[in-house]
Amino acid sequence: MIIRPDNREADELRPITFQPGIAPHAAGSVLACFGNTRVICAATLEEKVPTWMRVQGVKGGWLTAEYSLLPYSTLDRKARDISRGKLDGRTVEIQRLIGRSLRAVLNLEKLEGMTLWIDCDVLQADGGTRTASISGAYVAAKMAIRKFMEAGKIKEDPFTDSVAAISVGMYQETPILDLCYIEDKDAAVDANVVMTGTGRFVELQSTGEEATFSPEDLASMIALAKKGITEISGIQKRVLA
Amino acid sequence: MIIRPDNREADELRPITFQPGIAPHAAGSVLACFGNTRVICAATLEEKVPTWMRVQGVKGGWLTAEYSLLPYSTLDRKARDISRGKLDGRTVEIQRLIGRSLRAVLNLEKLEGMTLWIDCDVLQADGGTRTASISGAYVAAKMAIRKFMEAGKIKEDPFTDSVAAISVGMYQETPILDLCYIEDKDAAVDANVVMTGTGRFVELQSTGEEATFSPEDLASMIALAKKGITEISGIQKRVLA
Amino acid sequence: MIIRPDNREADELRPITFQPGIAPHAAGSVLACFGNTRVICAATLEEKVPTWMRVQGVKGGWLTAEYSLLPYSTLDRKARDISRGKLDGRTVEIQRLIGRSLRAVLNLEKLEGMTLWIDCDVLQADGGTRTASISGAYVAAKMAIRKFMEAGKIKEDPFTDSVAAISVGMYQETPILDLCYIEDKDAAVDANVVMTGTGRFVELQSTGEEATFSPEDLASMIALAKKGITEISGIQKRVLA
Amino acid sequence: MIIRPDNREADELRPITFQPGIAPHAAGSVLACFGNTRVICAATLEEKVPTWMRVQGVKGGWLTAEYSLLPYSTLDRKARDISRGKLDGRTVEIQRLIGRSLRAVLNLEKLEGMTLWIDCDVLQADGGTRTASISGAYVAAKMAIRKFMEAGKIKEDPFTDSVAAISVGMYQETPILDLCYIEDKDAAVDANVVMTGTGRFVELQSTGEEATFSPEDLASMIALAKKGITEISGIQKRVLA
Amino acid sequence: MIIRPDNREADELRPITFQPGIAPHAAGSVLACFGNTRVICAATLEEKVPTWMRVQGVKGGWLTAEYSLLPYSTLDRKARDISRGKLDGRTVEIQRLIGRSLRAVLNLEKLEGMTLWIDCDVLQADGGTRTASISGAYVAAKMAIRKFMEAGKIKEDPFTDSVAAISVGMYQETPILDLCYIEDKDAAVDANVVMTGTGRFVELQSTGEEATFSPEDLASMIALAKKGITEISGIQKRVLA
Amino acid sequence: MIIRPDNREADELRPITFQPGIAPHAAGSVLACFGNTRVICAATLEEKVPTWMRVQGVKGGWLTAEYSLLPYSTLDRKARDISRGKLDGRTVEIQRLIGRSLRAVLNLEKLEGMTLWIDCDVLQADGGTRTASISGAYVAAKMAIRKFMEAGKIKEDPFTDSVAAISVGMYQETPILDLCYIEDKDAAVDANVVMTGTGRFVELQSTGEEATFSPEDLASMIALAKKGITEISGIQKRVLA
Repeated sequence: MIIRPDNREADELRPITFQPGIAPHAAGSVLACFGNTRVICAATLEEKVPTWMRVQGVKGGWLTAEYSLLPYSTLDRKARDISRGKLDGRTVEIQRLIGRSLRAVLNLEKLEGMTLWIDCDVLQADGGTRTASISGAYVAAKMAIRKFMEAGKIKEDPFTDSVAAISVGMYQETPILDLCYIEDKDAAVDANVVMTGTGRFVELQSTGEEATFSPEDLASMIALAKKGITEISGIQKRVLA
Repeated sequence: MIIRPDNREADELRPITFQPGIAPHAAGSVLACFGNTRVICAATLEEKVPTWMRVQGVKGGWLTAEYSLLPYSTLDRKARDISRGKLDGRTVEIQRLIGRSLRAVLNLEKLEGMTLWIDCDVLQADGGTRTASISGAYVAAKMAIRKFMEAGKIKEDPFTDSVAAISVGMYQETPILDLCYIEDKDAAVDANVVMTGTGRFVELQSTGEEATFSPEDLASMIALAKKGITEISGIQKRVLA
Repeated sequence: MIIRPDNREADELRPITFQPGIAPHAAGSVLACFGNTRVICAATLEEKVPTWMRVQGVKGGWLTAEYSLLPYSTLDRKARDISRGKLDGRTVEIQRLIGRSLRAVLNLEKLEGMTLWIDCDVLQADGGTRTASISGAYVAAKMAIRKFMEAGKIKEDPFTDSVAAISVGMYQETPILDLCYIEDKDAAVDANVVMTGTGRFVELQSTGEEATFSPEDLASMIALAKKGITEISGIQKRVLA
Repeated sequence: MIIRPDNREADELRPITFQPGIAPHAAGSVLACFGNTRVICAATLEEKVPTWMRVQGVKGGWLTAEYSLLPYSTLDRKARDISRGKLDGRTVEIQRLIGRSLRAVLNLEKLEGMTLWIDCDVLQADGGTRTASISGAYVAAKMAIRKFMEAGKIKEDPFTDSVAAISVGMYQETPILDLCYIEDKDAAVDANVVMTGTGRFVELQSTGEEATFSPEDLASMIALAKKGITEISGIQKRVLA
Repeated sequence: MIIRPDNREADELRPITFQPGIAPHAAGSVLACFGNTRVICAATLEEKVPTWMRVQGVKGGWLTAEYSLLPYSTLDRKARDISRGKLDGRTVEIQRLIGRSLRAVLNLEKLEGMTLWIDCDVLQADGGTRTASISGAYVAAKMAIRKFMEAGKIKEDPFTDSVAAISVGMYQETPILDLCYIEDKDAAVDANVVMTGTGRFVELQSTGEEATFSPEDLASMIALAKKGITEISGIQKRVLA
Repeated sequence: MIIRPDNREADELRPITFQPGIAPHAAGSVLACFGNTRVICAATLEEKVPTWMRVQGVKGGWLTAEYSLLPYSTLDRKARDISRGKLDGRTVEIQRLIGRSLRAVLNLEKLEGMTLWIDCDVLQADGGTRTASISGAYVAAKMAIRKFMEAGKIKEDPFTDSVAAISVGMYQETPILDLCYIEDKDAAVDANVVMTGTGRFVELQSTGEEATFSPEDLASMIALAKKGITEISGIQKRVLA
C-alpha cells in the first residue's frame, strides 16, 4: 500500500474550495483551491468576437482562455512570459485545454457577438494547476453568465452542462488521484481528465514522459478520475447554489 | 454502415509508405505518406545538449522535435511561422507531442552529450499530419542511429522499442480509423494514440471540440487505434529491415 | 468646498490595509489595499545578480521590481502584456519607479551576490496602483528580509529606513490626497510622492497632462502628501510589529 | 564652494544654441546644443491621428514624440534599439516626457485630424539630453507650425505658451544647474523641471537613486531651475524672432 | 587548367532537372535540382493584393517570393528562422532577388487583384540555391498560370518572357560556371546573373567578399553566365512543353 | 539629349563634400553630402569581435556596418525600425553592402580582436544614400584608424586601398551618372557600383525592376560609374590629406 506525502488515500482528493469574489471588477471570479494549489479564475465579457470569426463570417460567440503562473507561485521565482518574450509550450497547451473544455459545455450561439474571456492566474502551484483552473473557471463563468442574464445582456443560459477536471497518475505502480507537486514530479504516467457533470468525457490526455503504460493502467486511472470528478461537480453545485 | 470519402472500411488505414533518403544531408530521412498526407521526416545529430541541461547539470542526451506546415501544404496557402512572428498553439502542441513520443522509447543516457533533432515538414496535409510525423520520425531516427553506430559516434542503440501513432475518431456516431482531412473536420471526437511496437501506450489524447463522448466511445476508439498501430509497426519494421 | 465621490475629506486617505501571506511560496507577500485598489505584492530572493552587474564587476546585490495589471483588474478587460508583445510605456515607468523607491532605502552591499525580486500584480485597479504597490512592496520585502535573516542567508538587515508613497492632485482647483480612479481621470495635475519613514523625499513626480500648475499648487500638494505618508508609515509599522 | 568640471558657477547654464535647418525635409528642425550635448530635433506633420483616437472617437489632433541616442553619441558605442529588439526603459520614459511637455502648451483641437511628430536624435550625449530635447523640440515644432499656417494647413497657432526644460541636482551637497555627464553620474539627487515661458510648471521629476533628499534641497533645486528656464525661454524667443 | 571537384569543365553546368508535382496542393510545383542542390519551388495564388497596394491604390497584381533553407538541408543542421526570431540578411536578400527576377518577366496588370506566391524551400544545399530557386520558380509559376488560365481565373498569360539564373565566379583565377558549395566557399569573386530566355539581363550581382576584381574578370564571367543561362532556358522549355 | 532635373550633364556628379567632425564622440565622422543627400557616417571601435568569430575561432578583427533612414530624412516621415519591430529588406541589403565594400579594402588581420563599427544615418534622402554612405564611411573609417594608430591601439594601417561608390542608371534610354531621387524613381535600370581607388571592382549590382537591359546598356553604365568613382576618390584623398 502506498503512503502519500499528505497521508491521503490513493483515491482521495485534496480539500477543494471555490471562494467567490476574489477579483471584484470581473463579472465572475473565484479563488480555486485544490490543497495548496491556488488559482485566481475570472470571467469577463467583451462585446465583440475574435477577428478570425468576423473574417470568416462565423456566427455565434466565442470563449477564450488565458493562463499564467504568477512569478511567485512556484518555489523558485518563474520569469514572466513578457520577460521571456513568448509563451512557453506548456502554457500554450494549458490555455488551449481550458478553452476547449469550457466550450464543450457551452452553446456558443447563445453568446452571439460576444467573447467570454476566462483568465486563470496561479497564485500558488502545488500540482494540478490546470485541473483547478478548469474546475474554477466553470464556476466563475457560470457566475458571470448569471450576472449577464440578470442585466439582460444574454437571454438564455448558454451552458448545457457543468465541467470539471482532475489529474490521475501511476505512482510507484499504483493509480492515484489528484497528484500534488512532488507526486507529479515522480509519477511515471500523468493523465488529465475533463468530464461533464453528467459523466461524459470532454478531454482525456494521458502521457508517459520517458515511460509507457498498459491498457490496464489506463482503465484504473479513468475509474479514479470519474470518482474525483463526481465529487468536484458536487462542490461546484453547492458553491453555485 | 458508414461510407468514407475514399471508400475505406471504418477500420482501414490509408496506404502507408516511408520512402528513405528524401533529404540526403540528414543522417536519416524519410518521406512519410499516409494517403495524401506527405511529411518530410529528418533526423540530425548535434554534439551538444540544450542549455537547460547544461545549466541544471542533467546527465545524458536529449531529443528535440520541430514541426511545420510548409506554406503550400494546405489547400489555401498558409503563412510561414516567421511571417506571423510566432508559432501557433497547434504547432507547439504537435512538436511537443512528437518529442515526448520518441523520448518514451529512447534511453537518453546512451545519447550522452548529444541532441537528436527531429524535423517534420509537411509537404501535403490531408489529415493525420501529427501521426504520420511520429511514425515517420521513428524510422528516420532509427536510420540515423544506425549510421552513428556504424561511425562509432554512439556505442549502443538507445532505442528500447519502436513507436507509431494513428488517429481515430467518432464520425457520424461510428468509430473510424486514420481520418483524412474532411473526416477530421466533421468528426465530433478526435483522438490521437501513440503506442510502442510491443503494444504499450505512450500517449492518448482524446478531445471533443464542442462535443463530449461516452466511456463506450473511448473504448471502441482505443481498440481501433491498437489495430492500426500494429499494422504501422509492421510497415516500419519492413522498411528498416 | 469639494465633495469627493466617496465623501472623504480633501486630506483624507482611503482605508489602507496590508494583509500578509497572500502568496505563500514567496518569502514575503501582502495584499495591499488602498480602498478598492488591491495589489498583490510579493518578495522573492534569487541567489545571483543581474548580468550587467556581473559584466561590469559591480559589487553588492540588487533589487528588481516588476508590475502588471491583471487582465480583470480594470473595468474593461486589459489584454496581457504578452498578448500585446511588449510592455506599455506606463508599465515600464511604474516598475522603474518601484525599483528606485525601494533601492533608496536599501544598503545593497548587504545583499551581496543576491537579487531581491519585487512583484506587484494589481487585482483591482481604482487609482493609486503605483503608490499601493510601493507601500505594499516595502512591507513584503521587509518580511522577506526577516525570513532570510532567520534562515541565516542574510546577516544584517539591509533596510536603512522604511518607504511609502501616495498620490496627490489638483481637482477642481483644490489639492486632494489619495485620488481614486474617477478623481485621477479628471484631475488637472497628478503627483506621486515617495518618502521615507523619517520624512525625506525619495521621488517626486508631478505632471500636468495638457495642463500646467503654479508653485503654490506644488507646495500645497507636497504638504498633503507628507501628511498621508506619515499615516501610511504608521500602518506599515503596525503590520510589521 | 563647489568647483565644476567646466568652471561654471553653480547657477550657470552651459552655452545654449538652437541652429535651424539641420534636417531640411522636416517641416521644422534645429540642432539643439547645451554645451557638448547636441540633439537633432525635428517636427513633421502626418495628416491622420493615432489609431486609438480614431477607435475611441476622440476629437482634435495629437503630438507624438520619439527619442533615440544615435549609436555614436556616447563614449562607448550604444547598440541601436532595433538590435536590442526593444526600447529600453529610459528611452520610453524620455519620449513620454517630451510628448507630455509639448502637449501641455498645445491646444490639440487646433490640430484637428493631424499628428505632429517630434523626433529627437542625440548626436552627442553629455548630460541633459532630455532637457535639450524638450527645449529644442519646442523651437522645431513652432517653426513647423508657422510653415503649416503659411501653407494654410493649419488656421490658428495651436501653441498657448512656450516650453523649456532644465536639469538641476544636488552635487557635493550643493544645488547646481544644468548638469553635464560627469556631474550627473555623481549627483546624489537629479531633478528635471519643465516650465512654460510664463513661469508655470509642466512637469517636475526629482529622483534620489540610492539616496534621499530634504524639503530644503527640493526648494533650492526648484529655484535654480526657474532661473535656468527663464534664460532658455529668452534664447528660444530670439531664435524664433 | 583547373580541376573541379566533380571533374566538370570550367564552363560546364551540373546536371539540371525540374521534376513537376512535388507539392500537389500548390497550383504549380517542381523539385529543381542543380547537381546535389535540390529546391522545392511552389506557386500558389491568393485572390487579393498586398496591403501596401490597397493603401496606395496601385493597380494590377503582385508576385511575392519566400525562401528558406530547411533545417536538414545543410551539413550542420541550420536553426529555423522562427527559432532565431527573424530572417537573416542572406535570406532577405535572396527572397527579394527571386521576387524581382520573376516580376521582370511578368505583366502584373494581367494579375489584377491577385498575388502569385512563390515559395522556395531548399531540401539540400550544395551551392547555387538562389539560382536553382529562380530557375525552378519560373517553371512552377508558368505551370500555375496555365492552370489558372484553364480554370478561367486569368484571361491572358502574364509572362512576357522566361527567366533563369546561374552563378559564375573566379576560382583559382579562372572564371567558372555554376559553382558547387566547396567552389563557392573558396571563390575570390562570386556573381549571380539573371537573364531572360531572349538574352536580356534582369539582374547582375557581382561581389568580391574580401577581394576585388578587374573589368576583364567581369567580362569573362558574364560570357560564361550567358552560355549557362541559354542551356537552362532550353531545359525549362522542354519541361514545360 | 536628356535634360536632368538639376540641369546636370548625363555624366556629371552632384556637388560632393565630406565634412569631418559631425559626431565628436565617434573616433571618425563625416557628414557626406551628394547634392541634397546628406548622411552622417561615423566609425567607432569596440575591443572585441562578434560572437560568431569567437565561437568559430576565427582570427583577426571585423567590420560591421549599420544603416538607417532617420524618420525626417524622407519627404513623408518614415517610421523608425524599432516601431516597425524589424529592419526592412532594403535596409538589410544596404548595411550588408556597406560592410562588404569596406571589408574588401581592409586587411582584417591588422584589426586583431577588434570590431570597427560603421554607422550611416541618413539626415536627408535624395537618391544615392547607399553610395554616399559607402564613400563617406571610408573617410570616417580612415580618420578613425589614424586616431587609433596615433593612440597605439593599432600598429599598422589595415586599409589596403580606398573605396568609393556611385549609382548609374538607364533613364529615358540614356545612361546617367549619380541619380537623384526623381531620376531613381523613374529609371528603368538602376545600378550601384563600388570600386577601389586603384580602379578594381568591389561590387556591381544592376537591377531592372519590372524591366530588363542589354549588354550594351551594361557596358555604358559601367564606363560612367568608373568616371564618377575616379572623381570621388580624388575628393576623398583631398579631405584626408
